[in-house]
Amino acid sequence: MDDTSFAVRRIGVVESPLTDRKSAPKQGFEEAPDAWLVFDADVLDGLEGIRSGDEVLVLTWLDRADRDVLRVHPRDDITNPEQGVFSTRSADRPNPIGVHQVEVASIEGRRFRVRNLEALDGTPILDVKPVLTPPGAESAV
Amino acid sequence: MDDTSFAVRRIGVVESPLTDRKSAPKQGFEEAPDAWLVFDADVLDGLEGIRSGDEVLVLTWLDRADRDVLRVHPRDDITNPEQGVFSTRSADRPNPIGVHQVEVASIEGRRFRVRNLEALDGTPILDVKPVLTPPGAESAV
Repeated sequence: MDDTSFAVRRIGVVESPLTDRKSAPKQGFEEAPDAWLVFDADVLDGLEGIRSGDEVLVLTWLDRADRDVLRVHPRDDITNPEQGVFSTRSADRPNPIGVHQVEVASIEGRRFRVRNLEALDGTPILDVKPVLTPPGAESAV
Repeated sequence: MDDTSFAVRRIGVVESPLTDRKSAPKQGFEEAPDAWLVFDADVLDGLEGIRSGDEVLVLTWLDRADRDVLRVHPRDDITNPEQGVFSTRSADRPNPIGVHQVEVASIEGRRFRVRNLEALDGTPILDVKPVLTPPGAESAV
């Protein structure tokens, strides 16, 4: 690691019925299923304060992504003109970090059930943050 | 890097009048100033499609964070009871990845001026994504 490269580490893993990137929904609001966030034992102290019903942002490491991609056809549809990856939510990008807004449905120890997560089974979790709502806004990260 | 640790790399850097963590606003909507996202030359192809006026998510590497922290007093106020870091937006956390929703004010080559960014001067940028709005929702990541 120099000052342009940094190491992130897994704090947990996604358990999901989704196993195939081609057939998975592209966004959580596109009928993604419920899934489990299963946290590693050494970060449990950091989860205190999260409750059922909370909306949270889950950051994941999209480990099946192609990191050498800078231009894509949006939604993997070749009839869509190519765009820069940073103007899309493509998983293929230099730093394939997924940002997913989900609702915590239930908590059982270190297993958190969440609604509408499009991440694939086995995807490493990097971080969880509360969704903040600035004054006057309906919703924002 | 094994299967629990991954390398992220800088794609650009924040230029901001904010240089001191103690005096910086804690959230972008708390009167954060305008700032510049200055992208590295090798990712410029990935930026095509982003336009002035767009709302984007900027992911940063909060390089001045303490990564060994799992519990914090929210907003650095010791009168607030300690909580797990994952129920807060503290910069101090195992993987200090900042998620900032900003408006692109203007674009000059590889320099993007953005509104309301609370990241400090020199903060590495990891990713930029469009803000997606699911059907029926006001705003969501």
